[in-house]
Amino acid sequence: MTVLVEPVARLIEAFARLPGVGPKTAQRLTYHLLRVPETEARTLAAALVAVRDDVRYCERCFDFSTGPLCPVCADPSRDDTRLCVVEEPLDVLAIERTRAFRGRYHVLHGAISPVDGIGPDRLRIRELLDRVAERVAADEPYEEVILATDPTLEGEATAMYLAERLTGQVGSVSRIARGIPVGGDLEYADEVTLVRAMQGRQELAVAPRP
Amino acid sequence: MTVLVEPVARLIEAFARLPGVGPKTAQRLTYHLLRVPETEARTLAAALVAVRDDVRYCERCFDFSTGPLCPVCADPSRDDTRLCVVEEPLDVLAIERTRAFRGRYHVLHGAISPVDGIGPDRLRIRELLDRVAERVAADEPYEEVILATDPTLEGEATAMYLAERLTGQVGSVSRIARGIPVGGDLEYADEVTLVRAMQGRQELAVAPRP
Repeated sequence: MTVLVEPVARLIEAFARLPGVGPKTAQRLTYHLLRVPETEARTLAAALVAVRDDVRYCERCFDFSTGPLCPVCADPSRDDTRLCVVEEPLDVLAIERTRAFRGRYHVLHGAISPVDGIGPDRLRIRELLDRVAERVAADEPYEEVILATDPTLEGEATAMYLAERLTGQVGSVSRIARGIPVGGDLEYADEVTLVRAMQGRQELAVAPRP
Repeated sequence: MTVLVEPVARLIEAFARLPGVGPKTAQRLTYHLLRVPETEARTLAAALVAVRDDVRYCERCFDFSTGPLCPVCADPSRDDTRLCVVEEPLDVLAIERTRAFRGRYHVLHGAISPVDGIGPDRLRIRELLDRVAERVAADEPYEEVILATDPTLEGEATAMYLAERLTGQVGSVSRIARGIPVGGDLEYADEVTLVRAMQGRQELAVAPRP
Protein backbone atom coordinates (compact mmCIF):
# COMPACT_ATOMS: atom_id res chain seq x y z
CA MET A 1 0.00 0.00 0.00
CA THR A 2 2.20 2.75 -1.31
CA VAL A 3 -0.34 5.47 -0.48
CA LEU A 4 0.52 5.21 3.22
CA VAL A 5 2.92 7.89 4.39
CA GLU A 6 5.81 6.50 6.37
CA PRO A 7 4.98 7.61 9.95
CA VAL A 8 1.47 6.20 9.52
CA ALA A 9 2.81 2.92 8.11
CA ARG A 10 5.28 2.66 10.98
CA LEU A 11 2.62 3.12 13.67
CA ILE A 12 0.34 0.58 11.99
CA GLU A 13 3.27 -1.84 11.96
CA ALA A 14 4.06 -1.22 15.64
CA PHE A 15 0.43 -1.80 16.63
CA ALA A 16 0.20 -4.93 14.49
CA ARG A 17 3.06 -6.46 16.48
CA LEU A 18 0.87 -6.44 19.60
CA PRO A 19 -0.86 -9.72 20.48
CA GLY A 20 -4.40 -10.01 19.10
CA VAL A 21 -4.03 -6.91 16.92
CA GLY A 22 -4.43 -7.70 13.23
CA PRO A 23 -3.48 -5.35 10.40
CA LYS A 24 -7.01 -3.89 10.11
CA THR A 25 -7.25 -3.21 13.83
CA ALA A 26 -3.77 -1.66 13.72
CA GLN A 27 -4.98 0.65 10.94
CA ARG A 28 -8.08 1.64 12.89
CA LEU A 29 -6.07 2.39 16.03
CA THR A 30 -3.58 4.46 14.04
CA TYR A 31 -6.23 6.50 12.26
CA HIS A 32 -8.07 6.93 15.53
CA LEU A 33 -4.94 8.40 17.11
CA LEU A 34 -4.51 10.76 14.16
CA ARG A 35 -8.01 12.07 14.75
CA VAL A 36 -8.20 12.46 18.53
CA PRO A 37 -6.84 15.49 20.39
CA GLU A 38 -3.05 15.42 20.29
CA THR A 39 -2.75 15.06 24.08
CA GLU A 40 -4.44 11.66 23.94
CA ALA A 41 -1.79 10.24 21.59
CA ARG A 42 0.98 11.82 23.68
CA THR A 43 -0.52 10.47 26.92
CA LEU A 44 -0.41 6.95 25.50
CA ALA A 45 3.19 7.44 24.31
CA ALA A 46 4.24 8.83 27.70
CA ALA A 47 2.50 5.98 29.53
CA LEU A 48 4.39 3.50 27.35
CA VAL A 49 7.72 5.07 28.14
CA ALA A 50 6.91 5.43 31.85
CA VAL A 51 5.91 1.80 32.18
CA ARG A 52 9.34 0.74 30.97
CA ASP A 53 11.22 3.43 32.87
CA ASP A 54 9.51 3.10 36.23
CA VAL A 55 8.36 -0.50 36.51
CA ARG A 56 10.57 -3.37 37.64
CA TYR A 57 10.07 -6.69 39.39
CA CYS A 58 9.21 -6.92 43.09
CA GLU A 59 12.29 -8.32 44.84
CA ARG A 60 10.18 -10.77 46.80
CA CYS A 61 7.36 -12.06 44.60
CA PHE A 62 8.47 -10.90 41.11
CA ASP A 63 5.19 -9.24 40.30
CA PHE A 64 5.58 -5.82 38.66
CA SER A 65 6.46 -3.02 41.05
CA THR A 66 7.65 0.57 41.17
CA GLY A 67 9.63 0.18 44.41
CA PRO A 68 11.64 -2.75 45.79
CA LEU A 69 8.40 -4.36 46.98
CA CYS A 70 5.08 -4.55 45.15
CA PRO A 71 1.84 -3.35 46.82
CA VAL A 72 0.87 -6.86 47.96
CA CYS A 73 4.29 -7.66 49.48
CA ALA A 74 4.40 -4.23 51.13
CA ASP A 75 0.92 -4.58 52.62
CA PRO A 76 1.21 -5.56 56.31
CA SER A 77 -2.46 -6.62 56.46
CA ARG A 78 -2.03 -9.61 54.12
CA ASP A 79 -2.02 -13.16 55.47
CA ASP A 80 1.63 -14.20 55.77
CA THR A 81 0.87 -17.88 56.25
CA ARG A 82 -0.43 -18.54 52.75
CA LEU A 83 1.45 -18.27 49.49
CA CYS A 84 -0.13 -18.49 46.05
CA VAL A 85 2.18 -19.42 43.15
CA VAL A 86 1.17 -18.23 39.68
CA GLU A 87 2.72 -18.18 36.24
CA GLU A 88 2.18 -14.56 35.26
CA PRO A 89 1.51 -11.13 36.81
CA LEU A 90 -1.88 -11.08 35.05
CA ASP A 91 -2.82 -14.15 37.11
CA VAL A 92 -2.28 -12.12 40.29
CA LEU A 93 -4.71 -9.53 38.96
CA ALA A 94 -7.27 -12.21 38.14
CA ILE A 95 -7.09 -13.73 41.64
CA GLU A 96 -7.15 -10.32 43.33
CA ARG A 97 -10.37 -9.50 41.48
CA THR A 98 -12.10 -12.44 43.19
CA ARG A 99 -11.21 -11.10 46.67
CA ALA A 100 -11.10 -14.79 47.67
CA PHE A 101 -7.43 -14.78 48.69
CA ARG A 102 -5.69 -12.53 51.21
CA GLY A 103 -2.26 -14.18 51.32
CA ARG A 104 0.94 -13.48 49.41
CA TYR A 105 1.96 -14.33 45.85
CA HIS A 106 4.92 -15.66 43.95
CA VAL A 107 5.14 -15.10 40.20
CA LEU A 108 7.13 -17.72 38.29
CA HIS A 109 7.12 -15.85 34.96
CA GLY A 110 6.22 -18.93 32.97
CA ALA A 111 5.84 -22.65 33.34
CA ILE A 112 8.20 -25.57 32.85
CA SER A 113 8.12 -26.59 29.19
CA PRO A 114 10.81 -28.98 27.98
CA VAL A 115 9.48 -28.65 24.42
CA ASP A 116 10.19 -24.91 24.48
CA GLY A 117 13.46 -25.40 26.33
CA ILE A 118 12.10 -23.80 29.50
CA GLY A 119 13.51 -25.63 32.50
CA PRO A 120 13.04 -24.76 36.20
CA ASP A 121 16.15 -22.57 36.07
CA ARG A 122 14.46 -20.22 33.56
CA LEU A 123 11.68 -19.48 36.06
CA ARG A 124 11.62 -17.84 39.50
CA ILE A 125 11.59 -21.28 41.17
CA ARG A 126 14.96 -20.92 42.90
CA GLU A 127 13.65 -17.72 44.53
CA LEU A 128 10.42 -19.46 45.56
CA LEU A 129 12.32 -22.31 47.21
CA ASP A 130 14.53 -19.73 48.96
CA ARG A 131 11.46 -17.92 50.32
CA VAL A 132 10.09 -21.19 51.61
CA ALA A 133 13.45 -22.25 53.11
CA GLU A 134 13.85 -18.90 54.89
CA ARG A 135 10.50 -19.42 56.57
CA VAL A 136 11.52 -22.91 57.60
CA ALA A 137 14.80 -21.56 58.99
CA ALA A 138 12.87 -18.94 60.96
CA ASP A 139 10.66 -21.73 62.33
CA GLU A 140 7.64 -20.11 60.69
CA PRO A 141 6.98 -22.33 57.66
CA TYR A 142 4.11 -21.42 55.35
CA GLU A 143 0.90 -23.10 56.45
CA GLU A 144 -0.12 -23.51 52.83
CA VAL A 145 1.30 -23.00 49.39
CA ILE A 146 -1.38 -22.89 46.69
CA LEU A 147 -0.15 -23.87 43.25
CA ALA A 148 -2.24 -21.74 40.90
CA THR A 149 -0.40 -22.39 37.67
CA ASP A 150 -2.58 -22.80 34.56
CA PRO A 151 -4.37 -26.16 34.18
CA THR A 152 -2.34 -26.88 31.04
CA LEU A 153 0.27 -29.54 30.43
CA GLU A 154 3.04 -27.11 31.36
CA GLY A 155 1.19 -25.69 34.35
CA GLU A 156 0.44 -29.17 35.72
CA ALA A 157 4.04 -30.25 35.21
CA THR A 158 5.22 -27.14 37.03
CA ALA A 159 2.78 -27.81 39.89
CA MET A 160 3.97 -31.41 40.21
CA TYR A 161 7.59 -30.29 40.14
CA LEU A 162 6.97 -27.72 42.87
CA ALA A 163 4.82 -30.07 44.96
CA GLU A 164 7.67 -32.55 45.11
CA ARG A 165 10.09 -29.88 46.30
CA LEU A 166 7.72 -28.13 48.71
CA THR A 167 6.17 -31.11 50.46
CA GLY A 168 7.62 -31.34 53.96
CA GLN A 169 8.78 -27.71 53.80
CA VAL A 170 5.33 -26.20 54.26
CA GLY A 171 2.14 -27.13 56.15
CA SER A 172 0.39 -28.20 52.99
CA VAL A 173 0.73 -27.90 49.25
CA SER A 174 -2.52 -27.45 47.38
CA ARG A 175 -3.57 -27.13 43.76
CA ILE A 176 -6.48 -24.96 42.58
CA ALA A 177 -9.48 -27.09 41.63
CA ARG A 178 -10.00 -27.83 37.98
CA GLY A 179 -13.15 -25.78 37.93
CA ILE A 180 -11.30 -23.99 35.19
CA PRO A 181 -11.68 -25.88 31.92
CA VAL A 182 -8.56 -27.96 31.29
CA GLY A 183 -6.48 -26.55 28.45
CA GLY A 184 -7.72 -23.07 29.21
CA ASP A 185 -5.88 -20.02 30.42
CA LEU A 186 -6.23 -18.89 34.04
CA GLU A 187 -6.32 -15.19 33.34
CA TYR A 188 -9.42 -15.55 31.15
CA ALA A 189 -11.49 -17.42 33.73
CA ASP A 190 -14.63 -15.66 34.97
CA GLU A 191 -14.56 -14.67 38.61
CA VAL A 192 -17.11 -17.23 39.80
CA THR A 193 -15.16 -20.10 38.24
CA LEU A 194 -11.99 -18.76 39.73
CA VAL A 195 -13.55 -18.49 43.22
CA ARG A 196 -14.69 -22.13 42.88
CA ALA A 197 -11.25 -23.17 41.82
CA MET A 198 -9.70 -21.42 44.80
CA GLN A 199 -12.22 -22.89 47.24
CA GLY A 200 -12.02 -26.39 45.79
CA ARG A 201 -8.24 -26.61 46.05
CA GLN A 202 -6.97 -30.01 47.23
CA GLU A 203 -3.81 -31.09 48.98
CA LEU A 204 -1.32 -32.76 46.70
CA ALA A 205 -0.44 -36.24 48.01
CA VAL A 206 3.12 -36.63 46.81
CA ALA A 207 5.85 -38.58 48.50
CA PRO A 208 8.60 -36.22 49.71
CA ARG A 209 11.90 -36.52 47.87
CA PRO A 210 14.32 -38.93 49.53
CA MET B 1 -7.54 -3.12 41.94
CA THR B 2 -5.13 -1.58 44.39
CA VAL B 3 -2.40 -4.10 43.58
CA LEU B 4 -1.71 -2.32 40.29
CA VAL B 5 1.24 0.02 40.44
CA GLU B 6 0.51 3.43 39.00
CA PRO B 7 2.47 3.39 35.71
CA VAL B 8 0.87 0.05 34.86
CA ALA B 9 -2.61 1.34 35.74
CA ARG B 10 -2.04 4.43 33.64
CA LEU B 11 -0.99 2.47 30.55
CA ILE B 12 -3.97 0.12 30.92
CA GLU B 13 -6.19 3.19 31.13
CA ALA B 14 -4.61 4.76 28.05
CA PHE B 15 -5.05 1.56 26.05
CA ALA B 16 -8.64 1.14 27.23
CA ARG B 17 -9.49 4.53 25.73
CA LEU B 18 -8.75 3.17 22.25
CA PRO B 19 -11.74 2.05 20.19
CA GLY B 20 -12.50 -1.67 20.50
CA VAL B 21 -10.05 -2.16 23.36
CA GLY B 22 -11.80 -3.35 26.52
CA PRO B 23 -10.24 -3.37 30.00
CA LYS B 24 -9.03 -6.97 29.71
CA THR B 25 -7.40 -6.38 26.33
CA ALA B 26 -5.82 -3.20 27.71
CA GLN B 27 -4.35 -5.28 30.54
CA ARG B 28 -2.99 -7.89 28.16
CA LEU B 29 -1.40 -5.27 25.92
CA THR B 30 0.19 -3.56 28.93
CA TYR B 31 1.60 -6.75 30.40
CA HIS B 32 2.79 -7.77 26.96
CA LEU B 33 4.73 -4.52 26.63
CA LEU B 34 6.26 -5.05 30.06
CA ARG B 35 7.54 -8.41 28.94
CA VAL B 36 8.90 -7.73 25.45
CA PRO B 37 12.34 -6.27 24.78
CA GLU B 38 12.37 -2.65 25.83
CA THR B 39 13.02 -1.40 22.29
CA GLU B 40 9.64 -2.73 21.17
CA ALA B 41 7.77 -0.58 23.69
CA ARG B 42 9.93 2.44 22.85
CA THR B 43 9.40 1.91 19.10
CA LEU B 44 5.65 2.03 19.61
CA ALA B 45 5.95 5.17 21.77
CA ALA B 46 8.20 6.86 19.21
CA ALA B 47 5.85 5.90 16.36
CA LEU B 48 2.96 7.46 18.29
CA VAL B 49 4.81 10.72 18.78
CA ALA B 50 6.09 10.78 15.18
CA VAL B 51 2.64 10.24 13.74
CA ARG B 52 1.40 13.37 15.51
CA ASP B 53 4.57 15.40 14.86
CA ASP B 54 5.06 14.58 11.20
CA VAL B 55 1.62 13.86 9.77
CA ARG B 56 -0.75 16.54 8.56
CA TYR B 57 -3.51 16.82 5.98
CA CYS B 58 -2.79 16.88 2.26
CA GLU B 59 -3.56 20.40 1.05
CA ARG B 60 -5.48 19.08 -1.94
CA CYS B 61 -7.41 15.96 -0.91
CA PHE B 62 -7.16 16.10 2.92
CA ASP B 63 -5.89 12.56 3.27
CA PHE B 64 -3.02 12.21 5.73
CA SER B 65 0.32 13.36 4.40
CA THR B 66 3.86 14.19 5.49
CA GLY B 67 4.42 16.90 2.87
CA PRO B 68 2.03 19.47 1.36
CA LEU B 69 0.69 16.77 -0.98
CA CYS B 70 -0.09 13.15 -0.15
CA PRO B 71 1.41 10.29 -2.23
CA VAL B 72 -1.71 9.98 -4.42
CA CYS B 73 -1.96 13.72 -5.17
CA ALA B 74 1.78 13.88 -5.84
CA ASP B 75 1.73 10.88 -8.19
CA PRO B 76 1.77 12.15 -11.82
CA SER B 77 0.67 8.75 -13.16
CA ARG B 78 -2.81 8.89 -11.58
CA ASP B 79 -5.87 9.57 -13.72
CA ASP B 80 -6.69 13.28 -13.35
CA THR B 81 -10.12 12.99 -14.90
CA ARG B 82 -11.73 10.97 -12.12
CA LEU B 83 -12.26 12.00 -8.51
CA CYS B 84 -13.44 9.68 -5.76
CA VAL B 85 -15.02 11.31 -2.70
CA VAL B 86 -14.84 9.39 0.59
CA GLU B 87 -15.65 10.08 4.22
CA GLU B 88 -12.43 8.97 5.91
CA PRO B 89 -8.73 8.36 5.14
CA LEU B 90 -9.27 4.66 5.91
CA ASP B 91 -11.71 4.53 3.00
CA VAL B 92 -8.89 5.61 0.66
CA LEU B 93 -6.82 2.69 1.93
CA ALA B 94 -9.70 0.28 1.39
CA ILE B 95 -10.23 1.43 -2.22
CA GLU B 96 -6.49 1.45 -2.96
CA ARG B 97 -6.29 -2.17 -1.85
CA THR B 98 -8.72 -3.15 -4.60
CA ARG B 99 -6.48 -1.61 -7.31
CA ALA B 100 -9.76 -0.90 -9.12
CA PHE B 101 -9.38 2.89 -9.14
CA ARG B 102 -6.51 4.95 -10.52
CA GLY B 103 -7.95 8.46 -10.16
CA ARG B 104 -7.69 11.03 -7.38
CA TYR B 105 -9.41 11.25 -4.00
CA HIS B 106 -11.11 13.79 -1.81
CA VAL B 107 -11.56 13.05 1.90
CA LEU B 108 -14.52 14.78 3.54
CA HIS B 109 -13.62 13.79 7.12
CA GLY B 110 -17.12 12.73 7.98
CA ALA B 111 -20.64 12.83 6.62
CA ILE B 112 -23.51 15.26 6.95
CA SER B 113 -25.46 14.39 10.09
CA PRO B 114 -27.99 16.93 11.34
CA VAL B 115 -28.65 14.76 14.41
CA ASP B 116 -25.02 15.12 15.46
CA GLY B 117 -24.90 18.77 14.44
CA ILE B 118 -22.57 18.06 11.52
CA GLY B 119 -23.49 20.33 8.61
CA PRO B 120 -21.70 20.65 5.25
CA ASP B 121 -19.52 23.44 6.71
CA ARG B 122 -17.96 20.97 9.20
CA LEU B 123 -16.67 18.81 6.34
CA ARG B 124 -14.18 19.41 3.53
CA ILE B 125 -17.05 20.11 1.10
CA ARG B 126 -16.14 23.75 0.41
CA GLU B 127 -12.67 22.54 -0.64
CA LEU B 128 -14.19 19.85 -2.87
CA LEU B 129 -16.42 22.36 -4.62
CA ASP B 130 -13.42 24.67 -5.06
CA ARG B 131 -11.41 21.83 -6.63
CA VAL B 132 -14.26 21.14 -9.03
CA ALA B 133 -14.77 24.84 -9.84
CA GLU B 134 -11.06 25.32 -10.57
CA ARG B 135 -11.20 22.54 -13.11
CA VAL B 136 -14.29 24.08 -14.70
CA ALA B 137 -12.51 27.46 -14.84
CA ALA B 138 -9.51 25.79 -16.51
CA ASP B 139 -11.91 24.26 -19.03
CA GLU B 140 -10.88 20.78 -17.87
CA PRO B 141 -13.85 19.65 -15.77
CA TYR B 142 -13.66 16.25 -14.09
CA GLU B 143 -15.10 13.57 -16.36
CA GLU B 144 -16.49 11.76 -13.34
CA VAL B 145 -16.86 12.28 -9.64
CA ILE B 146 -17.54 9.04 -7.76
CA LEU B 147 -19.36 9.51 -4.48
CA ALA B 148 -18.00 6.72 -2.29
CA THR B 149 -19.43 7.79 1.05
CA ASP B 150 -20.70 5.00 3.30
CA PRO B 151 -24.11 3.48 2.38
CA THR B 152 -25.56 4.74 5.64
CA LEU B 153 -28.21 7.38 6.25
CA GLU B 154 -25.54 10.05 6.66
CA GLY B 155 -23.44 8.85 3.74
CA GLU B 156 -26.45 8.78 1.41
CA ALA B 157 -27.52 12.25 2.54
CA THR B 158 -24.00 13.52 1.90
CA ALA B 159 -23.96 11.91 -1.56
CA MET B 160 -27.31 13.48 -2.45
CA TYR B 161 -26.14 16.86 -1.18
CA LEU B 162 -22.96 16.65 -3.26
CA ALA B 163 -24.75 15.30 -6.33
CA GLU B 164 -27.00 18.34 -6.36
CA ARG B 165 -24.05 20.70 -6.20
CA LEU B 166 -21.80 18.82 -8.64
CA THR B 167 -24.27 18.03 -11.39
CA GLY B 168 -23.52 20.28 -14.35
CA GLN B 169 -20.02 21.00 -13.03
CA VAL B 170 -18.56 17.64 -13.98
CA GLY B 171 -19.02 15.09 -16.77
CA SER B 172 -20.96 12.75 -14.53
CA VAL B 173 -21.64 12.17 -10.87
CA SER B 174 -21.82 8.53 -9.83
CA ARG B 175 -22.48 6.64 -6.62
CA ILE B 176 -20.79 3.33 -5.73
CA ALA B 177 -23.19 0.42 -6.12
CA ARG B 178 -24.85 -0.89 -3.01
CA GLY B 179 -22.99 -4.14 -3.30
CA ILE B 180 -21.91 -3.18 0.19
CA PRO B 181 -24.60 -4.14 2.69
CA VAL B 182 -26.68 -1.07 3.55
CA GLY B 183 -26.02 0.13 7.09
CA GLY B 184 -22.50 -1.24 6.94
CA ASP B 185 -19.18 0.51 7.05
CA LEU B 186 -17.16 0.93 3.84
CA GLU B 187 -13.78 0.31 5.38
CA TYR B 188 -14.80 -3.18 6.54
CA ALA B 189 -15.98 -4.39 3.13
CA ASP B 190 -14.08 -7.27 1.62
CA GLU B 191 -12.17 -6.45 -1.53
CA VAL B 192 -14.42 -8.39 -3.94
CA THR B 193 -17.53 -6.60 -2.68
CA LEU B 194 -15.73 -3.31 -2.94
CA VAL B 195 -14.60 -4.03 -6.52
CA ARG B 196 -18.25 -4.86 -7.39
CA ALA B 197 -19.40 -1.66 -5.78
CA MET B 198 -16.86 0.37 -7.76
CA GLN B 199 -17.71 -1.36 -11.04
CA GLY B 200 -21.48 -1.12 -10.52
CA ARG B 201 -21.46 2.62 -9.83
CA GLN B 202 -24.40 4.45 -11.41
CA GLU B 203 -24.91 8.01 -12.53
CA LEU B 204 -27.06 10.03 -10.18
CA ALA B 205 -30.02 11.52 -12.03
CA VAL B 206 -30.62 14.71 -10.13
CA ALA B 207 -31.99 17.93 -11.52
CA PRO B 208 -29.33 20.64 -11.37
CA ARG B 209 -30.02 23.43 -8.91
CA PRO B 210 -31.85 26.35 -10.47
